[in-house]
Amino acid sequence: MKDNKSKVKIIPLGGLEQIGMNITAIEYEDSIIVIDCGLAFPEDEMLGIDLVIPDVTYLKDNADKVKGLLVTHGHEDHIGAIPYVENEINMPIYTTKLTMGLIENKLREHNNLNNVKRKIVKHGQIINLGCFRIEFIRTNHSIVDAAALAIYTPEGIIIHTGDFKVDYTPVFGEMIDLPRFGELGKKGVLALMADSTNVERPGYTQSEKTVGKTFDNLFADNRDHRIIIATFASNVDRVQQIINSAYKYGRKVVVEGRSMVNIIQTATELGYINIPDNTLIEIENIKNYPDEQIVLITTGSQGENMAALSRIAANIHNKISIKPGDVVIFSSNPIPGNEKAVFKVINELEMKGAHVIFQDTHVSGHACQEELKLMYALTKPKYAIPVHGEFRHLKRHAELAVEMGVAKENVKILTTGDVLELSADTFEVTGKVPAQGILVDGLGVGDVGNIVLRDRQHLSQNGLMLVVITLEQGSYQLLAGPDIVSRGFVYVRESETLIDECKEVVQEALDMCLSKGITDWGKLKGTIRDALGEFLWKRTKRSPMILPVITEV
Amino acid sequence: MKDNKSKVKIIPLGGLEQIGMNITAIEYEDSIIVIDCGLAFPEDEMLGIDLVIPDVTYLKDNADKVKGLLVTHGHEDHIGAIPYVENEINMPIYTTKLTMGLIENKLREHNNLNNVKRKIVKHGQIINLGCFRIEFIRTNHSIVDAAALAIYTPEGIIIHTGDFKVDYTPVFGEMIDLPRFGELGKKGVLALMADSTNVERPGYTQSEKTVGKTFDNLFADNRDHRIIIATFASNVDRVQQIINSAYKYGRKVVVEGRSMVNIIQTATELGYINIPDNTLIEIENIKNYPDEQIVLITTGSQGENMAALSRIAANIHNKISIKPGDVVIFSSNPIPGNEKAVFKVINELEMKGAHVIFQDTHVSGHACQEELKLMYALTKPKYAIPVHGEFRHLKRHAELAVEMGVAKENVKILTTGDVLELSADTFEVTGKVPAQGILVDGLGVGDVGNIVLRDRQHLSQNGLMLVVITLEQGSYQLLAGPDIVSRGFVYVRESETLIDECKEVVQEALDMCLSKGITDWGKLKGTIRDALGEFLWKRTKRSPMILPVITEV
Repeated sequence: MKDNKSKVKIIPLGGLEQIGMNITAIEYEDSIIVIDCGLAFPEDEMLGIDLVIPDVTYLKDNADKVKGLLVTHGHEDHIGAIPYVENEINMPIYTTKLTMGLIENKLREHNNLNNVKRKIVKHGQIINLGCFRIEFIRTNHSIVDAAALAIYTPEGIIIHTGDFKVDYTPVFGEMIDLPRFGELGKKGVLALMADSTNVERPGYTQSEKTVGKTFDNLFADNRDHRIIIATFASNVDRVQQIINSAYKYGRKVVVEGRSMVNIIQTATELGYINIPDNTLIEIENIKNYPDEQIVLITTGSQGENMAALSRIAANIHNKISIKPGDVVIFSSNPIPGNEKAVFKVINELEMKGAHVIFQDTHVSGHACQEELKLMYALTKPKYAIPVHGEFRHLKRHAELAVEMGVAKENVKILTTGDVLELSADTFEVTGKVPAQGILVDGLGVGDVGNIVLRDRQHLSQNGLMLVVITLEQGSYQLLAGPDIVSRGFVYVRESETLIDECKEVVQEALDMCLSKGITDWGKLKGTIRDALGEFLWKRTKRSPMILPVITEV
Repeated sequence: MKDNKSKVKIIPLGGLEQIGMNITAIEYEDSIIVIDCGLAFPEDEMLGIDLVIPDVTYLKDNADKVKGLLVTHGHEDHIGAIPYVENEINMPIYTTKLTMGLIENKLREHNNLNNVKRKIVKHGQIINLGCFRIEFIRTNHSIVDAAALAIYTPEGIIIHTGDFKVDYTPVFGEMIDLPRFGELGKKGVLALMADSTNVERPGYTQSEKTVGKTFDNLFADNRDHRIIIATFASNVDRVQQIINSAYKYGRKVVVEGRSMVNIIQTATELGYINIPDNTLIEIENIKNYPDEQIVLITTGSQGENMAALSRIAANIHNKISIKPGDVVIFSSNPIPGNEKAVFKVINELEMKGAHVIFQDTHVSGHACQEELKLMYALTKPKYAIPVHGEFRHLKRHAELAVEMGVAKENVKILTTGDVLELSADTFEVTGKVPAQGILVDGLGVGDVGNIVLRDRQHLSQNGLMLVVITLEQGSYQLLAGPDIVSRGFVYVRESETLIDECKEVVQEALDMCLSKGITDWGKLKGTIRDALGEFLWKRTKRSPMILPVITEV
């Protein structure tokens, strides 16, 4: 009768295909809990798309089972889709204080703060949701108040690390609760779902505190210059350390960039950042201080087009412009894909006379190989399910898990939508739920799909050519046209002969159709499109989108 | 009368703004020589553009002065624009044997081989062009047969290093001719134009031979698996070393990817690569050998969409598909901007069961800091003009030159088109010549400009909406429409009401115009565009390109 026994199901509803869209459902009989609810940024080929959010059809279809949303930390890839998803399925949210503060900012922006139940949980606290008990365990990460989750299920304990690192000397709060992971390991852990981001890197990730020392040195070396530091808006500890160095070296601090201002405000209100009196000044008052008494903390460390630093570098920021001698520090590493944009900003800054420092002023927030091994050594899980990474990371992580003693058949790399069933003696993918990313463009959620993207792709590469024809009803005599309008194809003024030839090609195609008695609009348009397409390819080796417009009057 | 004395002019016609478009004119009185003639690949925002070539208006305007084109080595960024530029201005080409072979392949493809005079030059040889004498000096680089140029001008010697590194144990041929640089230094060097690519890296670039040892180790470690190695098509020495390892370990070699097949063929014919008999096999014969006796060398190490390795990874290659156990080695580093594409290919390969190795199997072809210092120590130039790099590289290089004893005012970073005049007592930018990159799209050279690119950008982000209206001539009564056609905007089926509302908006705008007696087409179209644009932004937060088409019959 073993097969009829209920099992725990783990269902990633995002993640592998859309990196960043972290959301996982855990189910047992009539209870479902959801871990994290992040958004992904669009791939290069998703032209015009603003962001990608998870498809929660499975949760909506099982709405009566869904007990709540548990959030591990406050990064966009773990909280960004909450306002959208809460519109689809109303779930109470459980998380730590700062994370909740950042989620509330988002809900407020989307005007649905009051519709969502929220409960702040402390590290060490346990909550009950359906047949699950969930314990929040303190971890370290590049945003404070991160938590791992120990999920007590009827089949055993599942540990989800969230994003984590081991920081023995954190800037704010305490180090990761390693003893608790050890205690759970002693009790017996059924499955470990751990962060794979840095699994390719040997050794340990350095403590956030090391960056503070680097800042002190840089402040000491550059006493005569204005200092501008770009970093991730959400890295509250990093900002704290910049403020500490600024205070020590007698500088005022200006914060620029909407997301950073918001997060620092929330962190300050909730007590996660400590700013000495008279240290923070408004950007408008910068002119009241000499350059060497100013440090500007700004967004844009990834070269994002509209972020403050990019606007400063391009000389289109309305309050700050670069002066020769300014020292600009990138306290960040480029995320893969952003290298070119970052280098562009650096080049622009240096052309304006700034001295740019972009090495050795950042540490990662993710566990390297030795930290992951430590996590396995403490928890000794029966099953391992690597999470948070591209396939190549998950695969390396799977190898590491085996190295750490997990049986090879007890390690699984899940694809988005996989239903993994597990119990003491089962560990297999038994099904698949719909879980494609949903594209958000402007106010539209899910109304842009493959056809629209293909058209945008086509238009972006070759532009378009419009063929306008007016026919007499019944007789199909040409009353006006063919007229040709093109956009994004070629300078028309330089190509008048080409356009004239296009008209001839259309005229011929039309004559050919009418002489054969073909008057069906679809066929007329198809013939025009083919004839003109072939002509243009031969003449220009380009294939613009061709749109014939026929009017009958 | 000093000011009337003739001076040497150095004019970069490409380079800084379009990285890769290496071309420099050097002029004295009635003589101009040109160094290199490369192409740039389009920036991300140059939608649909295939490549960028230099504007040689200045050379055309001074065609009677132009004595010849000197080429330092056979990379695309130094030879790629030759077939285009030779169509504009016919120059005899002087370069080393392999470089000439690769240039001839290009000219042949463009059907202008017979129109261009060509002369192969040996290292150590000196040629006379107008008032210049030019000596080719042996260097090392990631393609064999590279040369630096010593240009003897009436004002002194200018050394252009081309791209170089110092390799004491090159795979093919001899090490860089360091003594000759020293000898010239003793004679006195007016100006040094040196490679800046790796100026941010401390230390020395490793010898190409070290990669051979790594290959040997990897072949020894993976005796039971098929090995696939992706690298740069032009790195003949790398291919030679793979062939050496293959021969040693009893494997047959298959070469795949058009550009690589072409270059290896040319290099073999000219004696730059040595392939033992019965080592190279055709891709069709791969099935006659067990996997562990095969090594496939392929293009695609940068994740290029249509390259062989990308097609293999995506399972759309017609002759090779990945088998579990295959070992794939990336013998390359991602060029900034290509990281995401490379990681995508790696993920795809690993999903199909391949084991991917992408570290420690590449060395750079460019000089690091200590090698650059060596070049300055040997040549002791009066003036330094850093070349080949982004602005941040040129700036670091300028600092290094000062460190090495060049006076600060004797170091200049040039912008494309700058005219730098130099003599024993002059070193200043005195003018500017036209030198923007020219965009190539299909067969069109220069017919795509900013307006076309802006339209493509607009279309790519938001798609387009067509409004078709037919009016009666004279009366301006609406005979047909308004009809709405959209592409790349939104799924129309899901948005029927939206389209209906659009029609109403257009109808209202039209009625408003006609009631006011406005019948000018331009004004009608403008009013429709504004009204519809405003409506769509309010409703969707998107702004498709709106194209009103009015027909009068």
